[in-house]
Amino acid sequence: MKKVAILLSGSGVYDGAEINEVVLTLLHIEKQGASYECFAPNISQLHHINHLNGEETPETRNVLQESARIVRGNVKPLDELNEADFDALILPGGFGVAKNFCNFALNGEDMSVNKEVLAICKAFAEANKPSGYLCIAPVLMPHVFGKGVKATVGNDKDVAEAINNMGGEHVECPVNDIVVDNTHKTASTPAYMLAQSVSEAESGIEKLVAHVLSVA
Amino acid sequence: MKKVAILLSGSGVYDGAEINEVVLTLLHIEKQGASYECFAPNISQLHHINHLNGEETPETRNVLQESARIVRGNVKPLDELNEADFDALILPGGFGVAKNFCNFALNGEDMSVNKEVLAICKAFAEANKPSGYLCIAPVLMPHVFGKGVKATVGNDKDVAEAINNMGGEHVECPVNDIVVDNTHKTASTPAYMLAQSVSEAESGIEKLVAHVLSVA
Repeated sequence: MKKVAILLSGSGVYDGAEINEVVLTLLHIEKQGASYECFAPNISQLHHINHLNGEETPETRNVLQESARIVRGNVKPLDELNEADFDALILPGGFGVAKNFCNFALNGEDMSVNKEVLAICKAFAEANKPSGYLCIAPVLMPHVFGKGVKATVGNDKDVAEAINNMGGEHVECPVNDIVVDNTHKTASTPAYMLAQSVSEAESGIEKLVAHVLSVA
Repeated sequence: MKKVAILLSGSGVYDGAEINEVVLTLLHIEKQGASYECFAPNISQLHHINHLNGEETPETRNVLQESARIVRGNVKPLDELNEADFDALILPGGFGVAKNFCNFALNGEDMSVNKEVLAICKAFAEANKPSGYLCIAPVLMPHVFGKGVKATVGNDKDVAEAINNMGGEHVECPVNDIVVDNTHKTASTPAYMLAQSVSEAESGIEKLVAHVLSVA
Protein backbone atom coordinates (compact mmCIF):
# COMPACT_ATOMS: atom_id res chain seq x y z
CA MET A 1 0.00 0.00 0.00
CA LYS A 2 1.37 3.40 -1.00
CA LYS A 3 1.79 5.84 1.87
CA VAL A 4 1.49 9.61 1.65
CA ALA A 5 2.85 12.20 4.08
CA ILE A 6 0.51 15.19 4.54
CA LEU A 7 1.75 18.57 5.82
CA LEU A 8 -0.77 20.54 7.88
CA SER A 9 -0.42 24.26 8.67
CA GLY A 10 -3.11 24.71 11.33
CA SER A 11 -6.91 24.48 11.20
CA GLY A 12 -8.96 27.12 9.41
CA VAL A 13 -8.49 28.84 6.07
CA TYR A 14 -7.52 32.34 7.30
CA ASP A 15 -4.66 31.39 9.65
CA GLY A 16 -4.17 27.65 9.13
CA ALA A 17 -4.83 24.79 6.74
CA GLU A 18 -7.94 24.94 4.54
CA ILE A 19 -10.03 22.32 6.35
CA ASN A 20 -12.10 21.10 3.40
CA GLU A 21 -8.94 20.61 1.33
CA VAL A 22 -7.40 18.48 4.08
CA VAL A 23 -10.47 16.27 4.54
CA LEU A 24 -10.96 15.81 0.78
CA THR A 25 -7.29 14.93 0.32
CA LEU A 26 -7.46 12.27 3.05
CA LEU A 27 -10.78 10.94 1.72
CA HIS A 28 -9.42 10.43 -1.78
CA ILE A 29 -6.14 8.91 -0.61
CA GLU A 30 -8.24 6.31 1.24
CA LYS A 31 -10.69 5.79 -1.63
CA GLN A 32 -7.81 5.25 -4.03
CA GLY A 33 -6.37 2.50 -1.82
CA ALA A 34 -3.43 4.30 -0.23
CA SER A 35 -2.71 5.36 3.35
CA TYR A 36 -1.39 8.53 4.98
CA GLU A 37 0.15 10.10 8.04
CA CYS A 38 -0.15 13.78 8.92
CA PHE A 39 2.60 16.09 10.17
CA ALA A 40 2.79 19.73 11.26
CA PRO A 41 5.55 22.00 12.56
CA ASN A 42 5.52 22.58 16.33
CA ILE A 43 5.57 26.39 16.00
CA SER A 44 3.30 29.32 16.83
CA GLN A 45 0.89 30.52 14.17
CA LEU A 46 1.76 33.90 12.64
CA HIS A 47 -1.80 35.12 13.17
CA HIS A 48 -4.98 34.21 14.94
CA ILE A 49 -7.96 35.26 12.83
CA ASN A 50 -11.55 35.29 14.06
CA HIS A 51 -13.07 33.37 11.13
CA LEU A 52 -16.49 34.92 11.73
CA ASN A 53 -15.44 38.51 10.93
CA GLY A 54 -11.92 38.13 9.48
CA GLU A 55 -10.32 40.23 12.22
CA GLU A 56 -6.92 39.50 13.75
CA THR A 57 -6.91 39.00 17.51
CA PRO A 58 -3.92 38.92 19.91
CA GLU A 59 -4.40 35.22 20.76
CA THR A 60 -1.51 32.82 20.04
CA ARG A 61 -2.17 29.30 18.78
CA ASN A 62 0.19 26.44 17.96
CA VAL A 63 0.25 25.01 14.42
CA LEU A 64 0.69 21.39 15.57
CA GLN A 65 -2.06 21.54 18.22
CA GLU A 66 -4.56 23.22 15.90
CA SER A 67 -3.76 20.85 13.04
CA ALA A 68 -4.65 18.00 15.40
CA ARG A 69 -8.28 19.19 15.39
CA ILE A 70 -8.83 18.18 11.77
CA VAL A 71 -7.39 14.68 12.15
CA ARG A 72 -8.71 13.71 15.60
CA GLY A 73 -5.26 14.02 17.19
CA ASN A 74 -3.51 11.87 14.59
CA VAL A 75 -0.73 14.28 13.66
CA LYS A 76 2.98 14.14 14.47
CA PRO A 77 5.58 16.89 14.85
CA LEU A 78 7.22 17.63 11.50
CA ASP A 79 10.67 16.72 12.86
CA GLU A 80 9.47 13.09 13.08
CA LEU A 81 8.79 12.94 9.32
CA ASN A 82 11.36 10.81 7.51
CA GLU A 83 10.94 10.92 3.73
CA ALA A 84 12.25 7.33 3.49
CA ASP A 85 9.04 6.03 5.15
CA PHE A 86 6.73 7.50 2.47
CA ASP A 87 6.02 7.28 -1.25
CA ALA A 88 4.70 10.79 -1.76
CA LEU A 89 4.03 14.17 -0.15
CA ILE A 90 0.91 16.37 -0.33
CA LEU A 91 0.49 19.93 0.97
CA PRO A 92 -3.10 21.20 1.31
CA GLY A 93 -3.47 24.99 1.16
CA GLY A 94 -5.02 27.74 3.26
CA PHE A 95 -3.36 30.90 4.59
CA GLY A 96 -1.48 28.65 7.02
CA VAL A 97 0.84 27.80 4.13
CA ALA A 98 1.38 31.50 3.31
CA LYS A 99 1.73 32.51 6.98
CA ASN A 100 3.16 29.53 8.88
CA PHE A 101 5.07 27.51 6.26
CA CYS A 102 6.50 30.64 4.62
CA ASN A 103 5.90 34.40 4.79
CA PHE A 104 4.34 34.91 1.36
CA ALA A 105 1.32 36.57 3.02
CA LEU A 106 3.63 39.31 4.35
CA ASN A 107 6.49 39.50 1.82
CA GLY A 108 5.08 38.26 -1.47
CA GLU A 109 7.80 37.20 -3.91
CA ASP A 110 10.49 38.24 -1.38
CA MET A 111 9.27 35.41 0.82
CA SER A 112 11.37 32.86 2.64
CA VAL A 113 10.33 29.35 3.64
CA ASN A 114 10.40 27.82 7.14
CA LYS A 115 13.64 25.79 7.17
CA GLU A 116 12.06 22.57 8.45
CA VAL A 117 9.26 22.72 5.86
CA LEU A 118 11.71 23.50 3.05
CA ALA A 119 14.04 20.67 4.06
CA ILE A 120 11.33 18.01 4.03
CA CYS A 121 9.86 19.21 0.72
CA LYS A 122 13.35 19.11 -0.80
CA ALA A 123 13.97 15.64 0.65
CA PHE A 124 11.00 14.25 -1.30
CA ALA A 125 12.16 16.09 -4.45
CA GLU A 126 15.73 14.80 -4.14
CA ALA A 127 14.45 11.24 -3.59
CA ASN A 128 12.47 11.62 -6.85
CA LYS A 129 9.22 10.99 -4.96
CA PRO A 130 6.10 12.79 -6.21
CA SER A 131 4.57 15.80 -4.48
CA GLY A 132 1.17 17.48 -4.73
CA TYR A 133 0.60 21.17 -3.90
CA LEU A 134 -2.92 22.56 -3.43
CA CYS A 135 -4.37 26.06 -3.47
CA ILE A 136 -1.73 28.64 -2.40
CA ALA A 137 0.90 25.96 -1.58
CA PRO A 138 2.45 26.21 -5.10
CA VAL A 139 4.17 29.48 -4.02
CA LEU A 140 6.61 27.11 -2.28
CA MET A 141 7.43 25.22 -5.47
CA PRO A 142 10.10 27.52 -6.97
CA HIS A 143 11.93 27.36 -3.62
CA VAL A 144 11.71 23.57 -3.45
CA PHE A 145 12.27 22.61 -7.09
CA GLY A 146 14.18 25.59 -8.53
CA LYS A 147 13.81 27.42 -11.82
CA GLY A 148 11.22 26.44 -14.39
CA VAL A 149 8.96 24.29 -12.24
CA LYS A 150 5.40 24.35 -13.55
CA ALA A 151 2.81 25.33 -10.95
CA THR A 152 -0.76 26.60 -10.78
CA VAL A 153 -2.84 28.60 -8.36
CA GLY A 154 -5.66 28.91 -10.91
CA ASN A 155 -5.82 32.36 -12.49
CA ASP A 156 -4.85 34.85 -9.75
CA LYS A 157 -2.63 37.34 -11.63
CA ASP A 158 -0.70 38.64 -8.62
CA VAL A 159 0.17 35.22 -7.23
CA ALA A 160 0.97 33.89 -10.72
CA GLU A 161 3.35 36.83 -11.29
CA ALA A 162 5.01 36.19 -7.93
CA ILE A 163 5.53 32.52 -8.81
CA ASN A 164 7.06 33.53 -12.16
CA ASN A 165 9.29 36.17 -10.54
CA MET A 166 10.53 33.58 -8.02
CA GLY A 167 11.62 31.38 -10.94
CA GLY A 168 8.61 29.14 -11.45
CA GLU A 169 6.37 28.90 -14.49
CA HIS A 170 2.75 29.59 -13.62
CA VAL A 171 0.20 27.76 -15.78
CA GLU A 172 -3.47 28.76 -15.69
CA CYS A 173 -5.78 25.93 -14.67
CA PRO A 174 -9.51 25.51 -13.92
CA VAL A 175 -10.68 24.31 -10.51
CA ASN A 176 -11.43 20.79 -11.72
CA ASP A 177 -8.01 20.12 -13.21
CA ILE A 178 -4.33 19.84 -12.28
CA VAL A 179 -1.01 21.05 -13.68
CA VAL A 180 1.61 18.33 -13.92
CA ASP A 181 5.38 18.84 -14.08
CA ASN A 182 6.83 15.49 -15.06
CA THR A 183 10.44 16.66 -14.69
CA HIS A 184 9.93 17.45 -11.03
CA LYS A 185 7.23 14.80 -10.43
CA THR A 186 4.75 17.38 -9.14
CA ALA A 187 1.08 18.18 -9.53
CA SER A 188 -0.76 21.29 -8.39
CA THR A 189 -4.44 22.25 -8.38
CA PRO A 190 -6.22 25.55 -7.60
CA ALA A 191 -8.69 24.12 -5.02
CA TYR A 192 -10.03 27.04 -2.94
CA MET A 193 -8.01 29.60 -4.94
CA LEU A 194 -10.98 29.11 -7.31
CA ALA A 195 -13.49 26.71 -5.75
CA GLN A 196 -16.94 28.09 -4.95
CA SER A 197 -18.08 24.91 -3.20
CA VAL A 198 -16.83 21.76 -1.49
CA SER A 199 -17.63 19.63 -4.54
CA GLU A 200 -15.74 22.00 -6.87
CA ALA A 201 -12.68 21.70 -4.64
CA GLU A 202 -13.12 17.92 -4.60
CA SER A 203 -12.97 17.66 -8.41
CA GLY A 204 -9.38 18.92 -8.68
CA ILE A 205 -8.19 17.31 -5.46
CA GLU A 206 -9.42 13.88 -6.55
CA LYS A 207 -7.40 14.26 -9.79
CA LEU A 208 -4.32 15.47 -7.96
CA VAL A 209 -4.37 12.53 -5.55
CA ALA A 210 -4.87 10.11 -8.47
CA HIS A 211 -1.90 11.58 -10.34
CA VAL A 212 0.42 11.64 -7.33
CA LEU A 213 -0.42 8.02 -6.47
CA SER A 214 -0.05 6.91 -10.10
CA VAL A 215 3.56 8.09 -10.27
CA ALA A 216 4.49 7.07 -6.70
CA MET B 1 -33.53 23.17 -4.91
CA LYS B 2 -33.95 21.66 -1.45
CA LYS B 3 -32.19 23.57 1.33
CA VAL B 4 -30.75 22.06 4.49
CA ALA B 5 -29.90 23.85 7.74
CA ILE B 6 -26.75 22.50 9.42
CA LEU B 7 -26.06 22.98 13.14
CA LEU B 8 -22.38 23.32 14.06
CA SER B 9 -21.06 22.95 17.63
CA GLY B 10 -17.48 24.24 17.24
CA SER B 11 -14.47 22.89 15.32
CA GLY B 12 -12.66 19.77 16.49
CA VAL B 13 -13.95 16.43 17.73
CA TYR B 14 -13.03 16.74 21.42
CA ASP B 15 -14.66 20.09 22.20
CA GLY B 16 -16.58 20.99 19.04
CA ALA B 17 -18.06 19.57 15.86
CA GLU B 18 -16.41 16.53 14.28
CA ILE B 19 -14.77 18.24 11.32
CA ASN B 20 -14.78 15.31 8.89
CA GLU B 21 -18.49 14.72 9.53
CA VAL B 22 -19.28 18.34 8.75
CA VAL B 23 -17.27 18.41 5.50
CA LEU B 24 -18.69 15.07 4.32
CA THR B 25 -22.25 16.20 5.09
CA LEU B 26 -21.80 19.41 3.08
CA LEU B 27 -20.08 17.53 0.24
CA HIS B 28 -22.94 15.06 -0.14
CA ILE B 29 -25.66 17.70 0.15
CA GLU B 30 -23.97 19.45 -2.80
CA LYS B 31 -23.40 16.25 -4.78
CA GLN B 32 -27.04 15.28 -4.34
CA GLY B 33 -28.20 18.59 -5.80
CA ALA B 34 -29.30 20.43 -2.67
CA SER B 35 -27.96 23.51 -0.88
CA TYR B 36 -27.26 24.37 2.75
CA GLU B 37 -26.63 27.10 5.27
CA CYS B 38 -24.74 26.60 8.53
CA PHE B 39 -25.68 27.91 11.97
CA ALA B 40 -24.12 27.78 15.43
CA PRO B 41 -25.05 29.14 18.85
CA ASN B 42 -23.17 32.27 19.92
CA ILE B 43 -22.05 30.78 23.26
CA SER B 44 -18.80 29.81 24.99
CA GLN B 45 -17.57 26.25 24.55
CA LEU B 46 -17.83 24.11 27.71
CA HIS B 47 -14.21 22.98 27.30
CA HIS B 48 -11.11 23.75 25.34
CA ILE B 49 -9.21 20.54 24.64
CA ASN B 50 -5.67 20.40 23.25
CA HIS B 51 -6.36 17.89 20.45
CA LEU B 52 -2.74 16.78 20.41
CA ASN B 53 -2.76 15.29 23.92
CA GLY B 54 -6.45 15.33 24.92
CA GLU B 55 -5.83 17.62 27.89
CA GLU B 56 -8.21 20.35 28.99
CA THR B 57 -6.74 23.86 29.12
CA PRO B 58 -8.20 27.01 30.73
CA GLU B 59 -8.68 28.78 27.37
CA THR B 60 -12.20 29.91 26.42
CA ARG B 61 -13.42 29.68 22.84
CA ASN B 62 -16.70 30.68 21.21
CA VAL B 63 -18.81 28.02 19.45
CA LEU B 64 -19.90 30.34 16.62
CA GLN B 65 -16.39 31.69 15.92
CA GLU B 66 -14.77 28.24 15.95
CA SER B 67 -17.52 26.74 13.78
CA ALA B 68 -16.71 29.44 11.22
CA ARG B 69 -13.29 27.81 10.68
CA ILE B 70 -14.78 24.75 9.00
CA VAL B 71 -16.99 26.70 6.60
CA ARG B 72 -14.72 29.61 5.66
CA GLY B 73 -16.75 32.09 7.70
CA ASN B 74 -20.09 31.08 6.20
CA VAL B 75 -21.98 30.44 9.42
CA LYS B 76 -24.75 32.46 11.06
CA PRO B 77 -25.81 32.82 14.70
CA LEU B 78 -28.40 30.16 15.57
CA ASP B 79 -30.97 32.84 16.51
CA GLU B 80 -31.11 33.78 12.81
CA LEU B 81 -32.26 30.27 11.80
CA ASN B 82 -35.93 30.22 10.79
CA GLU B 83 -37.22 26.72 10.13
CA ALA B 84 -39.63 28.10 7.51
CA ASP B 85 -36.68 28.88 5.19
CA PHE B 86 -35.44 25.25 5.07
CA ASP B 87 -36.59 21.81 3.99
CA ALA B 88 -34.51 19.76 6.44
CA LEU B 89 -32.09 19.89 9.38
CA ILE B 90 -28.84 17.95 9.90
CA LEU B 91 -26.69 17.83 13.05
CA PRO B 92 -23.14 16.51 12.64
CA GLY B 93 -21.60 15.03 15.79
CA GLY B 94 -18.45 15.50 17.85
CA PHE B 95 -18.17 16.20 21.59
CA GLY B 96 -19.41 19.72 20.78
CA VAL B 97 -22.91 18.23 20.64
CA ALA B 98 -22.46 16.50 24.03
CA LYS B 99 -20.77 19.55 25.63
CA ASN B 100 -22.14 22.68 23.91
CA PHE B 101 -25.58 21.65 22.57
CA CYS B 102 -26.41 19.69 25.73
CA ASN B 103 -24.58 18.44 28.82
CA PHE B 104 -24.62 14.70 28.07
CA ALA B 105 -20.81 14.61 28.45
CA LEU B 106 -21.20 15.70 32.09
CA ASN B 107 -24.61 14.38 33.14
CA GLY B 108 -25.34 11.37 30.93
CA GLU B 109 -29.04 10.50 30.83
CA ASP B 110 -29.79 13.30 33.32
CA MET B 111 -28.77 15.75 30.62
CA SER B 112 -30.58 18.90 29.56
CA VAL B 113 -30.47 20.54 26.13
CA ASN B 114 -29.50 24.14 25.34
CA LYS B 115 -32.87 25.92 24.99
CA GLU B 116 -32.08 27.53 21.63
CA VAL B 117 -30.86 24.25 20.14
CA LEU B 118 -33.87 22.33 21.49
CA ALA B 119 -36.31 24.94 20.18
CA ILE B 120 -34.99 24.84 16.61
CA CYS B 121 -34.82 21.03 16.52
CA LYS B 122 -38.42 20.91 17.77
CA ALA B 123 -39.47 23.51 15.19
CA PHE B 124 -38.35 21.21 12.34
CA ALA B 125 -40.09 18.25 14.03
CA GLU B 126 -43.35 20.15 14.52
CA ALA B 127 -43.25 21.33 10.89
CA ASN B 128 -42.95 17.65 9.85
CA LYS B 129 -39.62 18.41 8.14
CA PRO B 130 -36.96 15.68 8.15
CA SER B 131 -33.90 15.72 10.40
CA GLY B 132 -30.61 13.81 10.34
CA TYR B 133 -28.53 13.17 13.47
CA LEU B 134 -24.91 11.95 13.22
CA CYS B 135 -22.53 10.30 15.67
CA ILE B 136 -23.40 11.31 19.28
CA ALA B 137 -26.11 13.80 18.19
CA PRO B 138 -28.88 11.13 18.57
CA VAL B 139 -28.71 11.63 22.38
CA LEU B 140 -30.75 14.75 21.63
CA MET B 141 -33.50 12.81 19.83
CA PRO B 142 -35.59 11.67 22.85
CA HIS B 143 -35.66 15.31 24.00
CA VAL B 144 -36.72 16.59 20.58
CA PHE B 145 -39.13 13.86 19.44
CA GLY B 146 -40.32 12.29 22.71
CA LYS B 147 -40.85 8.66 23.67
CA GLY B 148 -40.18 5.82 21.27
CA VAL B 149 -38.07 7.65 18.70
CA LYS B 150 -35.68 5.26 16.98
CA ALA B 151 -32.05 6.36 17.07
CA THR B 152 -28.59 4.89 16.65
CA VAL B 153 -25.09 5.68 17.85
CA GLY B 154 -23.78 2.36 16.49
CA ASN B 155 -23.19 -0.18 19.26
CA ASP B 156 -21.92 1.79 22.29
CA LYS B 157 -23.76 0.07 25.17
CA ASP B 158 -23.58 2.98 27.65
CA VAL B 159 -24.85 5.59 25.21
CA ALA B 160 -27.51 3.20 23.88
CA GLU B 161 -28.74 2.56 27.43
CA ALA B 162 -28.85 6.30 28.12
CA ILE B 163 -30.91 6.88 24.95
CA ASN B 164 -33.31 4.12 26.03
CA ASN B 165 -33.55 5.49 29.59
CA MET B 166 -34.35 8.95 28.22
CA GLY B 167 -37.30 7.42 26.34
CA GLY B 168 -35.77 6.68 22.94
CA GLU B 169 -35.36 3.29 21.28
CA HIS B 170 -31.74 2.61 20.42
CA VAL B 171 -31.19 0.42 17.35
CA GLU B 172 -27.76 -1.07 16.63
CA CYS B 173 -26.37 -0.05 13.26
CA PRO B 174 -23.09 -0.52 11.36
CA VAL B 175 -21.02 2.48 10.27
CA ASN B 176 -22.12 2.28 6.65
CA ASP B 177 -25.85 2.35 7.36
CA ILE B 178 -28.60 4.51 8.86
CA VAL B 179 -31.55 4.00 11.20
CA VAL B 180 -34.76 5.56 9.92
CA ASP B 181 -37.78 6.53 12.02
CA ASN B 182 -40.58 7.22 9.55
CA THR B 183 -43.01 8.40 12.24
CA HIS B 184 -40.68 11.21 13.25
CA LYS B 185 -39.10 11.68 9.81
CA THR B 186 -35.58 11.17 11.17
CA ALA B 187 -32.44 9.31 10.20
CA SER B 188 -29.34 8.69 12.32
CA THR B 189 -25.95 7.14 11.54
CA PRO B 190 -23.00 6.18 13.78
CA ALA B 191 -20.32 8.07 11.80
CA TYR B 192 -17.28 8.51 14.11
CA MET B 193 -18.96 6.62 16.96
CA LEU B 194 -17.71 3.67 14.86
CA ALA B 195 -15.75 4.97 11.86
CA GLN B 196 -12.09 4.05 11.66
CA SER B 197 -11.45 6.23 8.61
CA VAL B 198 -12.80 9.17 6.64
CA SER B 199 -14.21 6.87 3.95
CA GLU B 200 -16.02 4.71 6.54
CA ALA B 201 -17.65 7.82 7.97
CA GLU B 202 -18.56 8.90 4.43
CA SER B 203 -20.46 5.68 3.69
CA GLY B 204 -23.12 6.26 6.36
CA ILE B 205 -23.23 10.03 5.95
CA GLU B 206 -23.88 9.75 2.20
CA LYS B 207 -26.85 7.44 2.94
CA LEU B 208 -28.19 9.72 5.66
CA VAL B 209 -28.08 12.77 3.39
CA ALA B 210 -29.78 10.81 0.59
CA HIS B 211 -32.58 9.68 2.92
CA VAL B 212 -33.14 13.11 4.46
CA LEU B 213 -33.31 14.76 1.02
CA SER B 214 -35.59 12.02 -0.35
CA VAL B 215 -38.25 12.71 2.28
CA ALA B 216 -37.79 16.50 2.34
